[in-house]
Formats: sequence, C-alpha cells, structure tokens
Amino acid sequence: MSRGHAALIERLARVVGSSHCLSSPAELFAYECDALTLDAVRPVAVVLPEDAEQVSRLVGVCGELGHPFVPRGAGTGLSGGAHPVEGAVVIGCSRMRRILEVDAENRLAVVQPGVVNADLSAAVAHLGLCYAPDPSSQQACTIGGNIAENSGGPHTLKYGTTTNHVLGLELVLPDGERVRLGSKSGFAAGYDLVGAVVGSEGTLGIVTEATVRLVPLPEGVETLLAVFPDLQSACRLVGRVIGAGMIPASLEIIDQRTIAAVEASAYAAGLPLDAGAVLLIELDGAACGLADQVASIREFAASEGVRELRVARDEDERALFWRARKGSFGAMGRLAPDIYVHDAVVPRSKLPDVLERICQIADRYQLQLSNVFHAGDGNLHPIISFDRRSDEELGRVVAAGREILELCVAAGGVLTGEHGVGVEKRDYMGLIFSAADLAAMTHLRDAFNPTGICNPGKLLPVTRSCVESGSKARARVSPG
Amino acid sequence: MSRGHAALIERLARVVGSSHCLSSPAELFAYECDALTLDAVRPVAVVLPEDAEQVSRLVGVCGELGHPFVPRGAGTGLSGGAHPVEGAVVIGCSRMRRILEVDAENRLAVVQPGVVNADLSAAVAHLGLCYAPDPSSQQACTIGGNIAENSGGPHTLKYGTTTNHVLGLELVLPDGERVRLGSKSGFAAGYDLVGAVVGSEGTLGIVTEATVRLVPLPEGVETLLAVFPDLQSACRLVGRVIGAGMIPASLEIIDQRTIAAVEASAYAAGLPLDAGAVLLIELDGAACGLADQVASIREFAASEGVRELRVARDEDERALFWRARKGSFGAMGRLAPDIYVHDAVVPRSKLPDVLERICQIADRYQLQLSNVFHAGDGNLHPIISFDRRSDEELGRVVAAGREILELCVAAGGVLTGEHGVGVEKRDYMGLIFSAADLAAMTHLRDAFNPTGICNPGKLLPVTRSCVESGSKARARVSPG
Repeated sequence: MSRGHAALIERLARVVGSSHCLSSPAELFAYECDALTLDAVRPVAVVLPEDAEQVSRLVGVCGELGHPFVPRGAGTGLSGGAHPVEGAVVIGCSRMRRILEVDAENRLAVVQPGVVNADLSAAVAHLGLCYAPDPSSQQACTIGGNIAENSGGPHTLKYGTTTNHVLGLELVLPDGERVRLGSKSGFAAGYDLVGAVVGSEGTLGIVTEATVRLVPLPEGVETLLAVFPDLQSACRLVGRVIGAGMIPASLEIIDQRTIAAVEASAYAAGLPLDAGAVLLIELDGAACGLADQVASIREFAASEGVRELRVARDEDERALFWRARKGSFGAMGRLAPDIYVHDAVVPRSKLPDVLERICQIADRYQLQLSNVFHAGDGNLHPIISFDRRSDEELGRVVAAGREILELCVAAGGVLTGEHGVGVEKRDYMGLIFSAADLAAMTHLRDAFNPTGICNPGKLLPVTRSCVESGSKARARVSPG
Repeated sequence: MSRGHAALIERLARVVGSSHCLSSPAELFAYECDALTLDAVRPVAVVLPEDAEQVSRLVGVCGELGHPFVPRGAGTGLSGGAHPVEGAVVIGCSRMRRILEVDAENRLAVVQPGVVNADLSAAVAHLGLCYAPDPSSQQACTIGGNIAENSGGPHTLKYGTTTNHVLGLELVLPDGERVRLGSKSGFAAGYDLVGAVVGSEGTLGIVTEATVRLVPLPEGVETLLAVFPDLQSACRLVGRVIGAGMIPASLEIIDQRTIAAVEASAYAAGLPLDAGAVLLIELDGAACGLADQVASIREFAASEGVRELRVARDEDERALFWRARKGSFGAMGRLAPDIYVHDAVVPRSKLPDVLERICQIADRYQLQLSNVFHAGDGNLHPIISFDRRSDEELGRVVAAGREILELCVAAGGVLTGEHGVGVEKRDYMGLIFSAADLAAMTHLRDAFNPTGICNPGKLLPVTRSCVESGSKARARVSPG
C-alpha cells in the first residue's frame, strides 16, 4: 500500500471506526464490481458509514485528498453503476438500514438508503400497504440503489418506476454539503431536484434518506398463466390486452429456454417444457371488476391460439407462478457460469419482430439466448448465457449486445428500461441523444459534481470534458 | 423608442415577420403582467414565433443584443412566472397551437406549447381519452404554460400534476440550442431532465414541443355534492374518505362566501346560501365499484352532520355541480375589482385548524376572504377580494398574504401546490429551504442559464449572484 493510501485509510477510519473501513485485498474483493461482472477494479478502501453526518465527512476527506468516491447499495446493479474506478473509495450504505418513520395516514415511509426493498413492503404489510417498485433482486437490493438506477420491476406497468414513488430526499452533495429536496406531500416549490436525482446513478451525490410513497394493497388480485406454442402469439396477447384498455399490474413473458432452466431448478412451477412461451398476467384492483377482465383475456387468448390458460386458485398457486418468474434469473445459472442481462425498451407493437431478430443475432454469434421480460412495458431483457473465462466468447457476447441495442434503438426504442446506463451503456448514449442533448446532461452533472469526484465514468460518455474536470480516475470497464 | 430598441425590434421582426412582432404601447399593454396583477412592467417587444426554429433564432438575437427574454403561454399564471422585466422581450407561444400527433394505441399526444389545455381533451374525447391535468383556467391556459408551472387542477388528487403526464420535450436552451429530452415510452436513459424542466417556470429554456400522456376516460363516474353547516365538518369528511382508502378523482371544498358569489352569478347551481361549505366529490373508475363508495361516503357524511347529500343523476346535473366549482373564481369578480389567489399545501389533517386561523388573519387585516380549494390534496386557495387602486388596502393584502404563507409552512406545509413560485414567492423560498438547498437549485439554473438571460427574477430569491450573472434586468414586482 502506498503512503498516500495509508494516510487516506487512516482518515476514513477516523470517521467510521476501523472495523467499518475495509482495506485488505480479501475484504475489497467483493467490491470490485456489482452484478455487471464483465470487468472489475479494486477500490482503495470501502467505508460503511452509519449516518448522513459520517457520509458528509467521508466525502469531505475524499475531496481533500483527491480521491474519487463511488456510492454503493447492495451491489445488485446490472449496468455497473457501482463499479469502482482506479484510486476510488467505495461508500457503502448497507449499515444505514433503518426505517425511520411509517405514516400510514399519509401513506409514506421515511427510510435510510440501505433498507432492503422487500423489507420495506414486509414492514408495512400489516397496515395493508406496500412499496410498489419490485425489482427481481428485491430480496437483496436497497432503496438507495433503486433510487440511483430508477429501478422498476414486474409491477412497473401499472405502478411506474422508482421515480413515481419518491417524495423527498436528503442528499450529501459531492462537496459534502447536506441538502433536503422535495417534501412529504409530494408538492414542493422550486426545481424538481428529486426527479433529477432519481436515476442519476450516484453522480450528483449520495442519498442518505428517502421519503417514499406507500400504496394500498389491492382489494382483489387475479394471476393468470397463459401457455403459448410460440413467443409471437404471447406478444400478440399483450397487445390485445393493452389495446382493450386494461392496465394489468404485470404482463411478463418467459420463453422456452427459460422455462427449461426454471423447470430443472428449485423454482419449478410445472410449466410445460414444450411450450414456446408463457405469459404471466396479474390483474389487481376493485375485486368486482376482475372477473370481466379475466373473461376478456380468456377470449383474446383463445383467438391467439393459447394452449392452456391457468388462473391461480389461491395464494399458493399465485406464489408458484411468481416463483417461476422471479427465480428465472437464478435458474439461468444452470445453463452456463455467467449471464449478461440486457435491458432495452421498444414500442409494444414491435415486440414480435424485434424478438425474432434478436434471436437471429444470437444464432449468428452462436450464443445461448433466453428472454424473460416485462412485455407490457415493451421492456426486453435478452439474457446471454456464457463463460467469461473464454475471451473469444466474451468478445462475441459484447458484439452481439451492441447489435441488440442498435436494433432496439432503430425500432424506436430506448437504451434502458430499468437497469440504468452505468458504465455498460455510457458509450451508447450517442445512439439516442444528440451532442446538444448530452451537453445539457453534462451541464447538470457538472453543476452538482464540478470536479467529477463523485462516481466518475457513469451514465455519460467518457469525454474530454470529464478528464478535464479534474477527476484522476477513469473507469477501466468498457464492455461496449 | 431608443435606437437600441429599434435595432432589436428590427432584428426580431426579421425572424417572425413584422405582424408578429409587437412593439407599440397599445399592443404591449396586455403583456405587462400575467394573472398576478399586483405589479406590471412593459416589455420592449412581444414576438409570436410559429415554430422551434424561430424560437431558437429569437433567443439568439436576444443573447447577441443582451436583452433578457420571458416565455409566455396564455398569461393565466397566478405567480407572475410570465412577468416581464425591464428591457425584456416576451416570447409568446400562442401561435404554436398545433396538435402534431395523437397515438391512441400508445396513449400519447405530441403537441406544440400553445395548445390550449381543454382543446387537447376535446380533440381526443372521441377516442375515449383525455389529458388529465385540468387547471381552473383550462379553457384558456396552454400546455406550455402548464409545463412551466407544473400545473394541477381538481383531478390532481387521483391523477397527479403536469409532471406525471409529460413523457418528452423539445426545448430551446437559453443559448438557442435545441435539445430533445425524454422519449415517447416514458423510459429514457440518462438524467431525468424532463422532470427538471417541468415546473422550472421558463428559467431553463423554452419548451417548443411536448409529448404528453393521454388517459382513458373512466368507465364510470359519480359526482356528489355534500352540504355542510360549517367548513370544519366538510374538512373532516375529506379525512374520513381518504382514511378509508378511497382515492376519489376530486375532493373540492367551496366555502360560504364563495357560494354567495357563485349563486349571484351565471354559474348558479342552486347551492343553499346559508350553508357553511359544500364539498364536491367525484369518484371514477370501474363502474361496479362506485356504488359501494357512494354508500360509504353517505354514511361518513351523515356522521359528520351533513345537511344534504346530492348525487348527480345525469350528465347535466354533474355539469351543474362542476360549473359552480369551476366558475367560482370568475364569480369573485362580483365581490371586488381584484382578487389575490393564494396557493399553499398543508397536511390534510391540519386543514380545519389552518383554515380557522387563515380566517382570523383576514379578519385582523379587515379583508374579505373566500376559500375554494382542492381539499383532498390539502391544497388551499385562500382568495382575498380587494381594490388595488387603494395602496393602503394593497398593503394589507400583501401583509396578510405573508402571514397566511408563514402559517401554512409552520403547519408542515409547502409554499405552492400548483401555481408556482414565480416572482410572487421567490423571496419566501427561504421559509422552507436552507441556503444549501437554494444553492443546489441555483447550480441547476446556472448550468442551463448561465447569463441569467432566460426569464430572470423567477423561482429563486433575487440574490447577488443573479445580478452578477450578467442579466441587465431585475424584476420590479415584489409583492412579498
């Protein structure tokens, strides 16, 4: 360890205590990347503060000694938003995991950023409430990380992404200043900085407290599983349901290869192995309105050639259907040592065509592709299973990924639905934004983060101005 | 006219044609203020561009010649967001009033900023869709102005304010550059600049095109009018309805003095003149769920001492109830030559207490006060009727206004629900934001608007840095 690093670590440890300042290689190993594992950079130190005051002081130390810092939640992010850069200090929020207030009357909760997503819903279930955004990683991912990436989930179709559920924030700015944004009512005078911070991937500061909306658990829920001979007819049913004016809570498609992986795993739900795709449909709302919707869907599904339509008879069967969906990423582990989960949004009407062409791309690169995705939103998640130990295979994965993204953008889509830009897609931003658009975003970042010390190398293309801004570090990771 | 002004006007006229460049005193008179009429400043010129290209060139001319510019929609704003400053050019968007695209399948419309709010809903009604934000001024106000002020309306309770309905924007930046923000899908990579621009009161640029969400017209609607002996019991019913988990489309209260003004006007709806308050309740959604909600409300209302509960029997009666509500601001013209409409939000549970104390403040200042407001949101609109020709009376209006705002903030409220900060409340921002919070907002503004040329004197306190930023103009209006 260099003398400079030793001095840094001593100063950091003085803030959080030495047991919460990690600096040995073994300790740092787990923080070299998040769930985007294509590349990894070892940070100088990882600090685990317990409150906003400590975060502010840590940021101050980093600024004084000229070290970039990288905020981190649970490290489940898929675009590398929490990837360290050379010389960086990772500021992990996992110890800030208290639910500070639950106000059922006004349907809100005040939480620290390290609260695990699913824990919040569990804590308010007895009040008939829940926290709506539900990423697949919700058993592990944190509210702070969800805010950084504006995370969604299967219920995004009806309930929106994280930005629709954050009312107020406390933020430590890159210069250590603490500010409060928004309000408990959701009304606030002045610029909507809450909106600007949600999805900013930790580049504008570190969220140290969030006031989030809680929504009432629906009176009634119906969960349906429609089995189709092919992916295209499942997509067409999605179009029919939305076109009829229904807004289901979820419309999720699982393709054949995923079914095979799931059925061979602990998440098996009795899905037919020869089905081309299954569509999971969840309807919620006033109980009296659901039967009509189920009847309409039954009719639409029949005319689209459904093989079988199951309606969950009870909570156990509903849980079984969802277990297959939520466990599908985990089940992929059976196919190959690594997976690369893509994330793009296309207009719903383009789904059948785009999916067919994505399969062709994977075939051309001789890669194993599966699809599990939020069909109602047009939010695709093509998943490539591969072995990262082969550089040649990794090269094909990256090249295919680029073609998939270009295809989605050409179809009128956008680069990401819910995983963020991070390091993964920063160099693709030019596919959908003009130089002027990107300059406007850079204005915003530089206004808050003028020295570039705060989570460098994320979200925007790494350009000359970023280097000029004084950050010593450059992200090494460049999957694109 | 000075030689400098003549040169400016010639350059502006070259962009838009002389018939769309107004500069005579008679023409400029209507642009001296918006619907906040406490003070007025005559602009140097008013230009009426027809497209984004002209807006960009006009902004370029203003920048080159060092004249501030002020974007304007229909001029119905109540906080002075479109108030000119000395030497300013007003860029009015009223000619940019085309609906460019209606996409029923994806439930969105692309509009120019000068499209009148109500015209958009009228244009898509045959598709079973509407544009949800519905300010009281919706027959006149424009989508561009609504975006600038993040306008709400009676249906904000269920459907949210303008920010919840804007998917994408084209914006001309203060340096004339054109950028595209957001996307048609509502998903977008990078910073949420759409969110930052909505509610920014024209200080970050001029919106030249907006992609907005359309929502399905509800299957069923029930409109109820509950007549109460006093304001307090009407407020308590609001709390009971929300507390029971219902989310009506609207919960609007009209107080006794407003009832008297409405009933003496063309908007008369047969409201009893001796009632203390009426509560207008609109429920919408799946038709089958509404009867139960009406029954619950009937029961709650009875226990809160309702005098009478009318349920609209048909579309005509529903329109009659709403006419009373929507016409109430107009009817105020019967009470005095001028009105000052306040706008603040308090926690719903504090409504009875805060309203009582607002009445005491008005009594102490010997002012005539009425209340028409979005009770479900806790969004108060205390209205003071007065005669601005009396300086002494105007002084009392301003002093009472300040006390009302301070009271609302002390009750845990915020400065504005839907009218914006503008010039009216810029100097009150310190009541709810710290110096660091305001500095963060200033960072954002200065990143987009570094010279301060774009709508100076709005939204943020007028501080030294604003003067330093190079703007020659200072707003004269300072009602606070």
